[in-house]
Amino acid sequence: MRAAAVLVVGSELVTGVRLDTNSTEVTAALLAAGFAPDEVVARPDDEAAIAETVRRLVDTHDLVVVTGGLGPTHDDVTREAVSRALGLPLVPDPRLAERLTQVARRHRDPEAAAQVVRQADVLEGARVLEPATGTAPGQVVSGPWGHVVLLPGPPHEMRPMLESFLGTVRVGVAPRFVRCVGISESDVQVTAQRLLDAYAGIGFTVLASPALVDAVLFDAGAGGEVLDRAAAEIASALAEDCYSTDGSTLAETVIALARDARCSVAVAESCTGGLLGGALTEVPGASDVFCGGIVSYADDVKTSVLGVPPGTLQDHGAVSAETAAAMAEGVRERLGADLAVAVTGIAGPGGGTPSKPVGTVWFAVADADESSATLRHLFGDRDGIRTRAVVTALDLLRREIGGRAR
Amino acid sequence: MRAAAVLVVGSELVTGVRLDTNSTEVTAALLAAGFAPDEVVARPDDEAAIAETVRRLVDTHDLVVVTGGLGPTHDDVTREAVSRALGLPLVPDPRLAERLTQVARRHRDPEAAAQVVRQADVLEGARVLEPATGTAPGQVVSGPWGHVVLLPGPPHEMRPMLESFLGTVRVGVAPRFVRCVGISESDVQVTAQRLLDAYAGIGFTVLASPALVDAVLFDAGAGGEVLDRAAAEIASALAEDCYSTDGSTLAETVIALARDARCSVAVAESCTGGLLGGALTEVPGASDVFCGGIVSYADDVKTSVLGVPPGTLQDHGAVSAETAAAMAEGVRERLGADLAVAVTGIAGPGGGTPSKPVGTVWFAVADADESSATLRHLFGDRDGIRTRAVVTALDLLRREIGGRAR
Repeated sequence: MRAAAVLVVGSELVTGVRLDTNSTEVTAALLAAGFAPDEVVARPDDEAAIAETVRRLVDTHDLVVVTGGLGPTHDDVTREAVSRALGLPLVPDPRLAERLTQVARRHRDPEAAAQVVRQADVLEGARVLEPATGTAPGQVVSGPWGHVVLLPGPPHEMRPMLESFLGTVRVGVAPRFVRCVGISESDVQVTAQRLLDAYAGIGFTVLASPALVDAVLFDAGAGGEVLDRAAAEIASALAEDCYSTDGSTLAETVIALARDARCSVAVAESCTGGLLGGALTEVPGASDVFCGGIVSYADDVKTSVLGVPPGTLQDHGAVSAETAAAMAEGVRERLGADLAVAVTGIAGPGGGTPSKPVGTVWFAVADADESSATLRHLFGDRDGIRTRAVVTALDLLRREIGGRAR
Repeated sequence: MRAAAVLVVGSELVTGVRLDTNSTEVTAALLAAGFAPDEVVARPDDEAAIAETVRRLVDTHDLVVVTGGLGPTHDDVTREAVSRALGLPLVPDPRLAERLTQVARRHRDPEAAAQVVRQADVLEGARVLEPATGTAPGQVVSGPWGHVVLLPGPPHEMRPMLESFLGTVRVGVAPRFVRCVGISESDVQVTAQRLLDAYAGIGFTVLASPALVDAVLFDAGAGGEVLDRAAAEIASALAEDCYSTDGSTLAETVIALARDARCSVAVAESCTGGLLGGALTEVPGASDVFCGGIVSYADDVKTSVLGVPPGTLQDHGAVSAETAAAMAEGVRERLGADLAVAVTGIAGPGGGTPSKPVGTVWFAVADADESSATLRHLFGDRDGIRTRAVVTALDLLRREIGGRAR
């Protein structure tokens, strides 16, 4: 596999002001296209810093993707930095210059107009990646030493250009992802490795994120069909702990299963505060199956809106099997859904007790006939516990709907 | 200011499997402690790759913070890599070795037990950062060339150790953040620069993230008191567009304002699917003022649960001033809150029309007496539009509660 690196440019990315999500997207796409990404670097909007990093990465990688710093402001110096690093002059692309001159006419300020037109400058010999939205074009310079790809920073501008570029350079066989939930990293490792011992020419790694585990199979001579067979065998051995082999996320899997089963879904949330609904509605078209939810953060909302009996709250507390079940039943009935899941727990840092420490979270799933509650002790800080609670709730939904389909 | 770099270690961070949030936290803390972070690097769990990067960063920075790869599994090779890079042998710390030997007794597998004890190895001359939770200790090696700090990867283990380390090396004057919302980056730039022209010895930059803008003032000889005066002057000129000068997030500001005003808050969400409630409940202690919310993703939930009149939906559509107002009034009344905000819009990629394109979002704020609706055309993809909708809703709440306090 060919080595790839990603450089994300922006002062906000090295000062804790903005989370870098581009490098995550870009490296995932590079891996899927057969490259081996092994370095991500963030540098500020500083021409010398960017040029130094580009020079170093070009020496050690076949493909370097740079995002950000292509816009029209003074801070945007990526073009100039890469020109300096590669020793390639910047020349205006005639077609871009014409279009950007039109755009520049909308600006009253002559300096702002000149900055807009500057975006037509491309590295000598570069291929232009046309913008679908926005004004900043991307560019690709290729040589015997590999490719350098410049992409704009805004994710919705970057994404289509990256796809368009990768469509032209896809190398080798994409890795296969066997995605798992509700099982430990080491159990996935052991199960997959045992099956892979019977195969030759397959590279293997396990990647873990909070409450989720991916077994990733790389082509090392076996070829795509053998990779598919091995992935299917591992998925089958992991049984219900495997939620996808086609790259789908857990939320996408839940929405697809619910759509196939014609099963509408509602959620009742306490400690997750809305994040579970937020995760389900990340999926475009979630409205086909997701009715909505009730965030009952205050106890009296659990009673008044969700219909949790005051006695249940009094006898068992807000974080209990009984309250979770009543929340699930209440939201299912009020929103007219086929299935509902409820989450109530202690995310911390305050609110823990010896019998219900921080991380204690009760879940319940309810349909028209019955409900069942599940207790988990989740670890991490407030963010970590809330993230794990969302994953656990999605997984309970998945197993419930999947169980019905069988 | 002294140059600082962050190296985050983990194969999942260079393959798109996991979003790196540690570097954002660490660089923000470094900046606040008076360092100048200018490079973030992610490398896989590979001893040679980590060693190469550490060597390079130590040569160019006064402080290098490395997170991840300190745990007990085979993949955890940061200690060995840094030992190789700095030419410092690893020696077991007697006190850690004793404690970890106790922990290792819980493991049945002798290899797993040996791996646990390996975490007692520290670089010769290193200062140990005791773990508050977890088993992996951190360490600091200092020399005339600066500091290298090793911290565990899990954020809740990393965070207290980073704070403990920075408490001992805080240098110079921390920058001041004038945080803004509802105003463009260039307007913040122009306003702040004009005022700063009257000052000497202040460095200045503007950092933007979706819908939020920070004006950041650095000490360049002026000193802390002058920095405070300049920050206060800029904040005063930006008036209501400035939401904090003490580092608080927008959600923290809303919760604090609501607490001071003894004003309870509820939310009704459509296109944000719960993310607004999720953002408010990121703040520990949000339950003092946040009652909860209703996610009315399906139109019949808007009618049945929120009480939006069917005629309103029919005549004006789900994305309209009238529906937004009825949603806000409905949730306020049902949850018994003093104030409510509602969001309904088209996050895309589907669902847009010529008159209501993707990005059209209506907001409404309601109290016991009245409601008012606001239209915004937000840009970005589905994620970007939802993020901007959450920020806009938080800001409407902030301005409403802030207006009452005056």
